[in-house]
Amino acid sequence: MTVRGAADQKEILIFERRESGVRSYCRRFDCVLDTAEGSVVRDVSGREYLDFVAGAGSLNYGHNDPDMRAALIAHLEHGGMSHSLDLSSTAKSAFLTAFESLLLLPRGFDYRVQFTGPTGANAVEAALKLARKVTGRSNVIAFTNGFHGMSQGALAATGNRHHRIGPQMPLPGVTRMPYDGYQGEGVDTADLLARMLCDPSSGLDAPAAILLETVQGEGGLNVASPGWLARIAELARSSGALLVVDDVQAGCGRTGTFFSFEPFGIVPDLVVLSKSISGYGLPMALLLIRPEHDVWLPGEHNGTFRGNVHAFVTATVALTKFWADSGFAGDVARRGELLARRLAGVANVVPGATVKGRGMMRGVDVGSGALAASITRRCFVEGLMLETSGPHGEVVKVLAPLTTPDDMLNDGLDILLDAARDVTAESGVSGASGLVNA
Amino acid sequence: MTVRGAADQKEILIFERRESGVRSYCRRFDCVLDTAEGSVVRDVSGREYLDFVAGAGSLNYGHNDPDMRAALIAHLEHGGMSHSLDLSSTAKSAFLTAFESLLLLPRGFDYRVQFTGPTGANAVEAALKLARKVTGRSNVIAFTNGFHGMSQGALAATGNRHHRIGPQMPLPGVTRMPYDGYQGEGVDTADLLARMLCDPSSGLDAPAAILLETVQGEGGLNVASPGWLARIAELARSSGALLVVDDVQAGCGRTGTFFSFEPFGIVPDLVVLSKSISGYGLPMALLLIRPEHDVWLPGEHNGTFRGNVHAFVTATVALTKFWADSGFAGDVARRGELLARRLAGVANVVPGATVKGRGMMRGVDVGSGALAASITRRCFVEGLMLETSGPHGEVVKVLAPLTTPDDMLNDGLDILLDAARDVTAESGVSGASGLVNA
Amino acid sequence: MTVRGAADQKEILIFERRESGVRSYCRRFDCVLDTAEGSVVRDVSGREYLDFVAGAGSLNYGHNDPDMRAALIAHLEHGGMSHSLDLSSTAKSAFLTAFESLLLLPRGFDYRVQFTGPTGANAVEAALKLARKVTGRSNVIAFTNGFHGMSQGALAATGNRHHRIGPQMPLPGVTRMPYDGYQGEGVDTADLLARMLCDPSSGLDAPAAILLETVQGEGGLNVASPGWLARIAELARSSGALLVVDDVQAGCGRTGTFFSFEPFGIVPDLVVLSKSISGYGLPMALLLIRPEHDVWLPGEHNGTFRGNVHAFVTATVALTKFWADSGFAGDVARRGELLARRLAGVANVVPGATVKGRGMMRGVDVGSGALAASITRRCFVEGLMLETSGPHGEVVKVLAPLTTPDDMLNDGLDILLDAARDVTAESGVSGASGLVNA
Amino acid sequence: MTVRGAADQKEILIFERRESGVRSYCRRFDCVLDTAEGSVVRDVSGREYLDFVAGAGSLNYGHNDPDMRAALIAHLEHGGMSHSLDLSSTAKSAFLTAFESLLLLPRGFDYRVQFTGPTGANAVEAALKLARKVTGRSNVIAFTNGFHGMSQGALAATGNRHHRIGPQMPLPGVTRMPYDGYQGEGVDTADLLARMLCDPSSGLDAPAAILLETVQGEGGLNVASPGWLARIAELARSSGALLVVDDVQAGCGRTGTFFSFEPFGIVPDLVVLSKSISGYGLPMALLLIRPEHDVWLPGEHNGTFRGNVHAFVTATVALTKFWADSGFAGDVARRGELLARRLAGVANVVPGATVKGRGMMRGVDVGSGALAASITRRCFVEGLMLETSGPHGEVVKVLAPLTTPDDMLNDGLDILLDAARDVTAESGVSGASGLVNA
Repeated sequence: MTVRGAADQKEILIFERRESGVRSYCRRFDCVLDTAEGSVVRDVSGREYLDFVAGAGSLNYGHNDPDMRAALIAHLEHGGMSHSLDLSSTAKSAFLTAFESLLLLPRGFDYRVQFTGPTGANAVEAALKLARKVTGRSNVIAFTNGFHGMSQGALAATGNRHHRIGPQMPLPGVTRMPYDGYQGEGVDTADLLARMLCDPSSGLDAPAAILLETVQGEGGLNVASPGWLARIAELARSSGALLVVDDVQAGCGRTGTFFSFEPFGIVPDLVVLSKSISGYGLPMALLLIRPEHDVWLPGEHNGTFRGNVHAFVTATVALTKFWADSGFAGDVARRGELLARRLAGVANVVPGATVKGRGMMRGVDVGSGALAASITRRCFVEGLMLETSGPHGEVVKVLAPLTTPDDMLNDGLDILLDAARDVTAESGVSGASGLVNA
Repeated sequence: MTVRGAADQKEILIFERRESGVRSYCRRFDCVLDTAEGSVVRDVSGREYLDFVAGAGSLNYGHNDPDMRAALIAHLEHGGMSHSLDLSSTAKSAFLTAFESLLLLPRGFDYRVQFTGPTGANAVEAALKLARKVTGRSNVIAFTNGFHGMSQGALAATGNRHHRIGPQMPLPGVTRMPYDGYQGEGVDTADLLARMLCDPSSGLDAPAAILLETVQGEGGLNVASPGWLARIAELARSSGALLVVDDVQAGCGRTGTFFSFEPFGIVPDLVVLSKSISGYGLPMALLLIRPEHDVWLPGEHNGTFRGNVHAFVTATVALTKFWADSGFAGDVARRGELLARRLAGVANVVPGATVKGRGMMRGVDVGSGALAASITRRCFVEGLMLETSGPHGEVVKVLAPLTTPDDMLNDGLDILLDAARDVTAESGVSGASGLVNA
Repeated sequence: MTVRGAADQKEILIFERRESGVRSYCRRFDCVLDTAEGSVVRDVSGREYLDFVAGAGSLNYGHNDPDMRAALIAHLEHGGMSHSLDLSSTAKSAFLTAFESLLLLPRGFDYRVQFTGPTGANAVEAALKLARKVTGRSNVIAFTNGFHGMSQGALAATGNRHHRIGPQMPLPGVTRMPYDGYQGEGVDTADLLARMLCDPSSGLDAPAAILLETVQGEGGLNVASPGWLARIAELARSSGALLVVDDVQAGCGRTGTFFSFEPFGIVPDLVVLSKSISGYGLPMALLLIRPEHDVWLPGEHNGTFRGNVHAFVTATVALTKFWADSGFAGDVARRGELLARRLAGVANVVPGATVKGRGMMRGVDVGSGALAASITRRCFVEGLMLETSGPHGEVVKVLAPLTTPDDMLNDGLDILLDAARDVTAESGVSGASGLVNA
Repeated sequence: MTVRGAADQKEILIFERRESGVRSYCRRFDCVLDTAEGSVVRDVSGREYLDFVAGAGSLNYGHNDPDMRAALIAHLEHGGMSHSLDLSSTAKSAFLTAFESLLLLPRGFDYRVQFTGPTGANAVEAALKLARKVTGRSNVIAFTNGFHGMSQGALAATGNRHHRIGPQMPLPGVTRMPYDGYQGEGVDTADLLARMLCDPSSGLDAPAAILLETVQGEGGLNVASPGWLARIAELARSSGALLVVDDVQAGCGRTGTFFSFEPFGIVPDLVVLSKSISGYGLPMALLLIRPEHDVWLPGEHNGTFRGNVHAFVTATVALTKFWADSGFAGDVARRGELLARRLAGVANVVPGATVKGRGMMRGVDVGSGALAASITRRCFVEGLMLETSGPHGEVVKVLAPLTTPDDMLNDGLDILLDAARDVTAESGVSGASGLVNA
């Protein structure tokens, strides 16, 4: 573990005394953070860490991007609004204009934007509520290992039993279907959904929505194939359901394109964005709605923090700086390949390990949550912060900022490789070849 | 209506083209805001308005408090974290230390703090989930005209039919009971709850929680009496339910004390705070938990934006600046009385109108939503922003920043008085005396 | 307790060995019944009991009515159908013809008849399902102390916590409101319902149905007043809800008229009948539907035992024998008065006791479940079977067959009077005057 | 269609005038039945039909078995109880004694018997409620094409969309999984269940029960394989769920053994019986409970018609007459083979048709509901009553009484063969070979 100084210790006490036992990341990364820049964070004792967690995907452009910071300081000094409910503001106007011109028009998308409460879960709730309103149906199809948030409506769609057990009550309105690949290589799980939709006594109620992630971040970096996505989109259409893509983690460039579904030729009815949409890690979420589905009455889904003006300011910079041309997407693609290659090397040193994921949303399934935890713990000691994911936490997951310079990316992956090799050796398992999945 | 310049018009277009029809405040206040300071906001054409909406209660200390702003700029320039999941940080440490020393210890409260997703709804969801986990029961008692948010679990507790109709499905797990005064003067509604709790065939399932606001902000500024609150607290205790106070709107000093329930000698099991807790209008919410109920497993209720570091920075300044001694509370109390007096004058010019509310959370029930809307529309034209609330929008509601100077408060109330008089006169009803309720 | 012979003992063993612990009546009445006639049952040892339980109201015409028995034996000897799904049969035709000519036409009622599964619960489920289909709404209003059956949909409307706790899950879709008199003398509980229906933020979702018993049998013989019933009927109409009267226990003449609501000038949209509708204690239930609400698709609510042909045979005799003229109703009215007088005498010997109920559905609230149990236990020893009801089992309930001769009724009530006096004396409480409620 | 006489016509009128539109069988079989004996029913005009519907499986021993009839008449003449709630009675004692000695002991089963409301749906509700109580969990796993009844709790487990749509609300607490064979030959659907049970983020909540039919009667005569059943039983055990077999249609000898699961070496935790358990078509249902799960409190699941005494009388005769030795089971096995052979012949004349089912619960999947309806309509004209089943009604289903003499069985199957051939010829499709499934 890290050695902490006296100041550090005193600050730890306040957390132990006053913060709820629900806190979790801080148990694995037991430092007290102070400052951050790009892909590096620094704790109160001055120790630096490479941050390949990136706010669980909220910091795709790294920490404290200088242009966003400058814009935010300027906004503050100008006396710009900090909070304005869903009132119109110059900051919102600028954001919408950038969003339209840089993201929607170039892709031929005609979405309306709803600023929901500033969390992914809230935007998922809004999406399901709207899909139910549009269709007059209550059932939503979600998938094994899906993760969509913690509030009750979103939790109904989330697969994680650890989280589902809390409310002590059934979470109705969601039917669970196997995600792509869940039944192994020989089985196309879309066949099961297709059959159940057509079969009037399958027990599958007519769906209001089909809700999915194209890459399941928390679920273990499971990647949906293009063919499966296309079939699901078609099943949504033919069954009168809205296709809802939860792009909270896989969106905002994480897989190489701004929207994770761009390469597959599908245009979801609703798209949920959050995490990196503000660019600066500020709370913000939005729901994209095809115009024909924008049947909300004024205020029907409301909330106090629908318009985080500071987030509009930084988000506008993020869009303008990174998405005005294809340069950044190219960088991400290149770094994604680098990541895949290096992770194959890591998988090589862990028997039975495989590489999973897409773009810069990749990791190594080391086959055991305990092993993955040991590896990430070792990485943290060596100055690298990494998460795990998957049903058993068995996937070491790299969510480095998309802006991480190649050498820094390599530095981090060196640490991971060493940690994987050492921990594997210590745990007495011998090497085997890793395979790149997806 | 306001006369808008060309720039204004162009910006309006982007909202109409790209923003969802769900937007609401901006329909009543059709300006494009740019800057703000204290109790005044300024639109893109330079027009100023007194802001007695205050972010629906999120700006109790007014807009852009100079000390908070300075601290936030310093944090930005220092390279402080902007996003840190639920990791420990110096900013969080400072906030918790101030929260403990300035709020908890002086009041003899021993709460643990959970940083939930940064919306009141999310904190309400966490509260209900935790209460259900603690008790092993699923039923929650909520009250007529209660408002607790839009996500599915919170919406189940919210009374508003306009909002409840969206999900197209029952919202289970909540039993509705009449709030204090709901059945008129002669009936103590706590009697009904008491009887139903004791009666094993009442149909009221054993409750996990009793959830209430001490003043119902959205519900029409209904004020619970001290006696009723004490009985409800006792019924919660005797029935094994957790008492949950939703202090999202009534808390943070709005009624005169930091917590709205302080004057009544009750100590809720769980307290929900949001809106003005950051001090600066930034998204933040927290749940206070009596230590014996803090049975969360790590990460059991999680979310990406649990630690809005910028909000910690401004919140710490807010607590230090306004709550280190009793001066501010005294100011609020005095202004609350001023407000009550002036609103009695307003009620005087509207036949049948009554003053409702407590502290600086007051308004005038003018008996009709149409009349209230006309009055607030007139106020807006005259440079004053005001909301309505209540089941039919019949209450003109004043939520001025608590820091509004007395003369500015009077200026605003002058506008309101004129508007009320003029609109009433135009609509052809003649004057009657207004009575101060509660 | 009763002294049982050897044969009895051997038979008791099979029940203890093989029957589930869920059995209940047989614990209080620990005899093994063999034969029965009219209001008398006889156990295997030859001991006779006056049966003032009457199959919990299923034997309004007593046991083994000779005319019904003769008709059933004739049917059996003729080779008549015993089971015919929902196929048309001569027996069903005869029943429907009698039902129409003897019950519907004389009262000016134009109901359609649905033969549901042969239990009251199943007919209640059908009623709620149909009301939800007709209105497109899911919420049903039911009342404190209501009892509507044990299957999940019916249980949601039943108030009894003992029963509600089994399913380990919320029972959604029902809002509970206080029954007439539940809030004491000064409060008209219909006011609360009226207000909540009109108040768009009351939290009361628009109702599909208002479901009620005019006298709550299991709930403690609570009697709805004519004025309250009329208001509820009007509230159902004005809110677009169907009025559903559960006449399972109070119907079939129990309160003096065939339908319990006849005296009040209301015509429910749906009426649930079961228990005594077959006349002979055979399983049968039906739902009466105003023609405009009969929107069922064929088979939409089905079930194997919808057509209990033997029950059609006996039911037809019951209608013809007892309801062709007003003689029987007159007898019931007279006996109901006799019962009220005699029960007032019983109440006189139990301090604080009151008489409750209507027609031949009456009892004495002795104020304590323990006292009521002692009294009925003593009665059983003396040869009288009696149930208790009410939230705490505090009401000694007389459900004698409507055909019980006056002298036999007096004999039973003599036993009850003695038991009440003796048990009260033994438990050391002194006499006070009983009051007739309702 | 049938030609009906004048009397017939008049009787039809009462049904059209007074019976709800929900009636269904009588639409397909538009006669008015009067008498019945064995496998033959007779309508009011004297016309006879072979009844291969047998009360949807409620008349496994045919109509009006002379021994049961004699016993019932004797009971009536003796003055035996007709209704006795859940009181002990000589008739119940006799039934339980026969049930224990003839069914339980010979098979080494140690079940407790719960007499639920007299419908299969009510017994299913009791089973699910009990499983939830035993496990403290709410989720129940049910299968595609399963049919378990119409009351809300049972309907949640039923797959049929036509029925599920009625309540206008989600039917929570049930997770649907694919039945054996649902995903085609190459896929063992138990693998999916196994994986989802083990995967903590599959979204499958820990189950209280796994509910299944070994042959899905309404679902289209789908037969579970021994291996699949054994795996499901093991998955129930290992996941802490109760295995509940709904033997309402497949039990009581229909597949050749009294319980449909006997050949497979599994002993369910709970078994639901109804339909033919009374032997005479009288309403009766029961739940068998392994003693360790009999945690009911007295009266926790109650109901008025739990003890249909007449049904006890006939059921006791049925058990004694047919199940005292293995002769009857041998007859059923032999007739089942005969049926399979003859249905293969039927399948031979319908292109693409296949034989489905097990024992005397078999039918022919003719590939289209319209075709199946035409065939059964033709059969009815020729004097044979037959149902269809399956998601699209595509399976012509033979549920002849198990006691049908071989020549009568052949007569009926001759009619079916002719009808299938003629209808197929008329609809212009040419013959192909039928295959026997399962």
